Order: sequence, then structure tokens, then C-alpha cells
Amino acid sequence: PSELVRDSKPSIWVEFTALAAECNAVNLGQGFPDNPAPKFATDILKEISLHPEQTPWHQYTRGFGHPRLVNALAKLYSKTLQTQVNPQTDILITVGAYLALYYSFLGWLNKGDEVIVLEPAYDSYLPQIKMAGGIPISVVMELSKNPKTSEDYKFDLNKIESKITNKTKMLVLNNPNNPTGKLFTRNELEGLAELVKKHDLIVVADEVYEWHVYPGHEMIRFATLPGMYERTITIGSAGKAFSVTGWKTGWAIAPSHLLQPLKNIHQNCIFTSITPIQEAIAQCFEKEIELIDAGKTSESYLLTGLSSQLERLRDRLVKSCSEAGLKPIVPQAGYFLMADFDSFDGPFKDAAGSSDLLDFRFVRWLCREKKLATIPPSAFYSDENKKGHDHFVRLCFFKKDQTLDAADEILKQFK
Amino acid sequence: PSELVRDSKPSIWVEFTALAAECNAVNLGQGFPDNPAPKFATDILKEISLHPEQTPWHQYTRGFGHPRLVNALAKLYSKTLQTQVNPQTDILITVGAYLALYYSFLGWLNKGDEVIVLEPAYDSYLPQIKMAGGIPISVVMELSKNPKTSEDYKFDLNKIESKITNKTKMLVLNNPNNPTGKLFTRNELEGLAELVKKHDLIVVADEVYEWHVYPGHEMIRFATLPGMYERTITIGSAGKAFSVTGWKTGWAIAPSHLLQPLKNIHQNCIFTSITPIQEAIAQCFEKEIELIDAGKTSESYLLTGLSSQLERLRDRLVKSCSEAGLKPIVPQAGYFLMADFDSFDGPFKDAAGSSDLLDFRFVRWLCREKKLATIPPSAFYSDENKKGHDHFVRLCFFKKDQTLDAADEILKQFK
Ligand SMILES: CSCCC(=O)C(=O)O
Ligand SMILES: CSCCC(=O)C(=O)O
Repeated sequence: PSELVRDSKPSIWVEFTALAAECNAVNLGQGFPDNPAPKFATDILKEISLHPEQTPWHQYTRGFGHPRLVNALAKLYSKTLQTQVNPQTDILITVGAYLALYYSFLGWLNKGDEVIVLEPAYDSYLPQIKMAGGIPISVVMELSKNPKTSEDYKFDLNKIESKITNKTKMLVLNNPNNPTGKLFTRNELEGLAELVKKHDLIVVADEVYEWHVYPGHEMIRFATLPGMYERTITIGSAGKAFSVTGWKTGWAIAPSHLLQPLKNIHQNCIFTSITPIQEAIAQCFEKEIELIDAGKTSESYLLTGLSSQLERLRDRLVKSCSEAGLKPIVPQAGYFLMADFDSFDGPFKDAAGSSDLLDFRFVRWLCREKKLATIPPSAFYSDENKKGHDHFVRLCFFKKDQTLDAADEILKQFK
Repeated sequence: PSELVRDSKPSIWVEFTALAAECNAVNLGQGFPDNPAPKFATDILKEISLHPEQTPWHQYTRGFGHPRLVNALAKLYSKTLQTQVNPQTDILITVGAYLALYYSFLGWLNKGDEVIVLEPAYDSYLPQIKMAGGIPISVVMELSKNPKTSEDYKFDLNKIESKITNKTKMLVLNNPNNPTGKLFTRNELEGLAELVKKHDLIVVADEVYEWHVYPGHEMIRFATLPGMYERTITIGSAGKAFSVTGWKTGWAIAPSHLLQPLKNIHQNCIFTSITPIQEAIAQCFEKEIELIDAGKTSESYLLTGLSSQLERLRDRLVKSCSEAGLKPIVPQAGYFLMADFDSFDGPFKDAAGSSDLLDFRFVRWLCREKKLATIPPSAFYSDENKKGHDHFVRLCFFKKDQTLDAADEILKQFK
């Protein structure tokens, strides 16, 4: 094997998705809905599949993005990012946000370049940064005492600045944050923008949960802050937006000088993404844009449908957890819930012979013995920060009521 | 930008696919069919889109490959590769063969490792090898005098061996070859296998046109040669197999010790490919396996449908080219035709002020002035070998009869 992969370890998704299947567990682990995909989306895919003669729908399309999709995205993001997004030069379509992240690191980092990462952070960032030769510099967001909601995750701007050196090249920001559901405030973002300007950084803004924001909260896209569009690679995902994670279509949006290195890698990596799925997603966005333009906000899946559906499910799981003594941190956004299992007892607490972290032991036990699959959030911290952050469990609540019922039954045993 | 992409140049697909569209040309350029996609394939996709409630069809699937797809492929390739292919460990599903190639190089090459490439070679190999830190070592396959068919592309085994050093790690073999249509003989492959064994090499066998072999010719998969399965990463493509290039689903098949590094990169790159398309392709292969197992070879798309359809189209374009004085090299496999335009005259011959190769000038002129899009095959040679290999043009004949009619009309002007 090459040096690139010599220290590679299987990611949590490999272990815990397989474990959930093996145990035939109620699955609140990996983040995907198990309720039906939106019918408008699958209906569009059906229409596409009824036209085998449509070459532009089934054969190679434009490498950097299917024309109809980049056009639709340019329209939408010109609004949300409050700037003119050029469909030809400022958008790159990828296989999920995952690939857009990979391209961002490989396209911009050289050996030894440092990247500020706020933790907990999506678990792919660290190995991806390292693969690109970069060095992740982690800053932990700590929970305030008696935390109730994801607002209680706070970071210290001075601490971040103290870690910036002349090797610091980039800041990765996951807003809304996975796994915590934290939605960054304008104040917090402005503080970060100051640092970005002062130290001449590039920002990778992973905003895949941008539409999963609960009523009463505001999503502020990083690129909308003064001067930030020029420095930001905004990453989004149609799999998340339209609740079809298996459709795995994401994008990077940035001014062309920032995007070009990503395109150069794309050209050698996959060259082009999947056409019929890009066509389907383009049509989904066109429908959304039509509704939004017509002021029919309440009919929009992105603006209303998604978050109203999710809010109810979140509240259900918050209740189940609370009742079980699994102390929830109510998320402002996203479809994950962090819950503290510190007051729990069980054989998982017996660390004898194991160097594994507490949450890994808890999650494996919960899956094997209680048939409830979850994710251990210490996986979202770098090695030096895992300790002390291993008494939480991450649960996904974007699930059918039957699934949440079944989870509730299991959690009731802990009362 | 990172050093990785600093010397990156746009690939021919970026230039010539855009040019074809811009000129609204009759398109025999980039390799994709413009006749309808097989109805059995789109019908399966329709069925999938009728079931939004089927979570396993629309949400994340197993990262290394959708279970139903790896199972179907294991069945099929256990036959064609004449060995037991384990669906769990020996198959990795990728976004097109392109990504499988990328993984193979990044997974196995370290800085300075040398890779033997027989030219002409698919144009992505060189930049992909270089991105991985490898050094492509090119050996040209030369045409014998008065070539008639792609069998007339020959290579010199001694010349290959003379280029092998202690840095040589890998051989890339594209069989059937794009752009020539050359199908390697058993004798040729056995010669290569000898070298592979003697010098302890890994083989990347890009066999994406394995089903596009014309009657009277035999496809010999490299991994079937004695001792070679253990050393070979076999790369295939459903986009090619089922004539839906936009479905971009490929794979790498290899014993698990060879495949593991590719999986490690995959895990940081896309993590998982697109689910509904993998499900659709799985069902396509299941249908094929059923027909093949039942001995209904004549009803099989892969064994009969594809090549019989292609043979007719090939013969049409061979005739059109011959009549126009564009001397064709009749391919034994694949859907491309190489034709010599040496005897042609036109303004493209005037090289004044241009450092471009003759075939690039010819192809641009043919597209802009005559509205016929093709590909310049010197792009499939490394810089030092382009000269002398720039009097051919590559034409794709997997097209509707109307398209080939239109091409014929254009070519008639040259008589
Ligand atoms: C690559 S699988 C990850 C799914 C996901 O985004 C999550 O569960 O956090
Ligand atoms: C990446 S587009 C390439 C299409 C193709 O394989 C070819 O035309 O050779």
C-alpha cells in the first residue's frame, strides 16, 4: 500500500453501520431517514426513467456539473449567499458533500499546512486533512454547565487565535454542526470572520444541514458575512436537502479562483457525476425555486416541510431520552441529538481489559444487548480531546414514528 | 492551490465536449451512445423510483458497495475471472471506472514508483499516476505497415522489459484498448504475465470494454492467466456494459490484500456511491446472469445484444471513412475507430503560428468548419510520443443511424 493509506483505520460508519445491520437493531445510528423519500423527488426520477431516448439524461453530462443542475443551484444560492453565483464557473457538482470536502483539502493544502477545526467535528475532516498532507489544529467547543440546548456549545475566540500560526491556511466550519446541532450565532460567525480576514485564511463552510433549522432559529451562511464570499468554499448536499442520502449529490460553491483547484482534482478523480440523479435533483430545486419565488413558503419542502416534520420527531426523541434519564442537548438544527448517559449504569462501565472509550463501549453494548443502534460522538474529536467527551451518545431522529416508538420501548427499560 | 494541482491542465474531455456542444456538431467525439438507453435498464430504474418507501434503495447503502450489486458482480465475475470472487472483500463499487483507476494509483503508488503504460493509453492514466506521485513509463504500441485492423498495433516485449527498473511497481493494461480497439492476444498477455511475475508487479487491468468484443474475437481477462488473479486489480464499468455512461458506476475487483488500500482511500473520498443507481445496475446484472445461466445467450445484452448492434454501426462508419479517404483501422472491440487523415488537405495543415499537434488542428477544424466532432488521439500519448502519432482521428460509432447518416453526409464532402 502507499504511504497515504498506511495508517488508515476503518471509519465509524464502517463499524457501526455493519453492527446495526448485524444486530438487526432499531437504527438511530448513521444519519439517514427511514421514512419514505419525498414523493415529488421519486416522481421526478420516474419521469426521467420513462425517457431512455433522452441522451442528456442517461449519458455523460458536463464534467463540472449537469447544466440544468448548476443553473438551478446558481439561482438558489445567488439568493441564499446574497451574491451573484455564476453557474459556469462557481459551482462544482460532487458525489456528496463528502467528495467536495475531500477536494477542498486536496486542492488547497500542502504538506504541513495547518487547518483549524472546531470540535466536535464531522469525523471525515481529520483523515481527509491528513491525506492532503495538512495538520488539523483542533479547538474544542465546550458545553456550559447544565446544558439544555446546542446553544450551550461555546468556543473561545482567543483560544482559536492563539493556535493560529504562519502555517495556518484554512478554517473548517460545520454549521449547523454535526453531531451537536449547534447553529452558530451571527456574533460567533463575525468573530471567526475577523480572524479569517486578519490571518488570511480560506474557509471551508460545510453547511449541509442549512435547511434543517428549527423554527425560531436563523441560519447564517458564512459566505454572506462581509468580505467572506471571496474566501469561502460553501459545501451543500441534495441528499440532505431532499432527504435522499443515497442520491449522494453535493457541491462546492466558491468564486472561480477558489474553486479551480477542486475542479482540477475532480477532472482526475471522477471527471463527472451521475447524470439521471443530477437531472432529478435539478428538477427538485426548480420546483422549490418556483414555490419560493411565488411566495408559497408554506408549500416549500426546504423552507417549511423539512423542519416542521423534523421538529416533531426531535421533540419525540427528546422526550424519550429525558424519560429514560439520558440527558438530551436539544438541537437547534440538523437531525441528530446528543444525550448524556453519565448517570447510566451497566456492564459497559466495566472497562476491564479494554482501552476503548466509554461511549464506544456504551454504543456497542446498546446495540448488541438492547438492539438500539447509535453513534459514539468521541469519534468526532481528535485523539487528544476524546477523553472527557465520551459520556454522550448521538441519536438520529429523522425516522418513521414506528422506529421512534421502538426506540422509546427500548429506552423505557432504563427508567 | 496545492502542489498537487499546480500543473494541472484541462483534459481533452473538457475542451472537446464543450466544443462539440458549442458548434452544435454531429458528435462522434466523447464516447457515449446517443441511441436510447436499453429499456430493461430504465424500466428497472422506474420500478425503483416507484418505491420511495424502500429505504435501502434511496438512502446510504454499504460504503464499499450496495449488497445486491456486489453479490451480482461476484456471481458474474466468479465466472469470467474463473476464480471465487468474494462479494464482501474482493469488490469495491466506484463512481465509474475512472474513480477505480484513481484509487488504484493512489492506493499503491509512492513518490517515484514507476508504472509501465502501453500507449496509446486512456488519457486519464498519466495525470492520475502523476497525482499519486508515480512516474509513468511509456511504451508505444506501433502500427505495422499498411495497417487494416487494430490487431496491427504491436508492442515489443523486450522493449517493455528494458524499461523495467527496481522502481517499477505496476503495469496498466487497457484491454480492449481505447482508442485503438486493440484486443490483446493470449500470446501477448502471456508475455506480459511473464514480466509481471518476474519483476513482481501489480497489474491494473482496465477492461471496461470487455463486453464490446466483435464476433470472431476472444476477450481474455488478464486475471484469468495463471497466477495473475493474485496480482491484478480488474476494473469494469456498468456505464459501458449497459450503455448508460451517465450512470457512472464502476468497480475494482481484486483479492482483498490488493483491494484494501483502495477501500481506505474510498472511505475518505466518497465513502459510498449512489444507491438507486447501484440497485438498478444490480438488477440489470441479475437479469443477465439468469439468461446466461439458462443458456439463453442470444437474449443476453452483454453476450449478444451489444456486440451485434455495435458491429453493424462499426461497419457503417468504416465504410463512410474509407469512402472519404479517411483510412480506418477496423477495431476488434470497443466503440471507437481510429482513422488516418494523412492524405487529407485543408487549412488545418497550415501550422503557421501554432504549436498544436496536427490532429488537434484537424479535429478543431472538422468541428468548427464541418460540424463533425471527433477526438484527437495524440492526447492518448505522453508528450515525448505525440509527434508521429498525430495523423489519426478517433471517431465513436455507438450512435443512432441518423447521427451516422449525418456524419456520412459530412464525410462525403471529402471524396
Ligand atoms: C458517510 S455516512 C455519514 C452519515 C452522516 O452524515 C452522519 O451520520 O453523520
Ligand atoms: C471521461 S469522458 C470519457 C469518455 C470516454 O471514455 C472516451 O470517450 O474515451
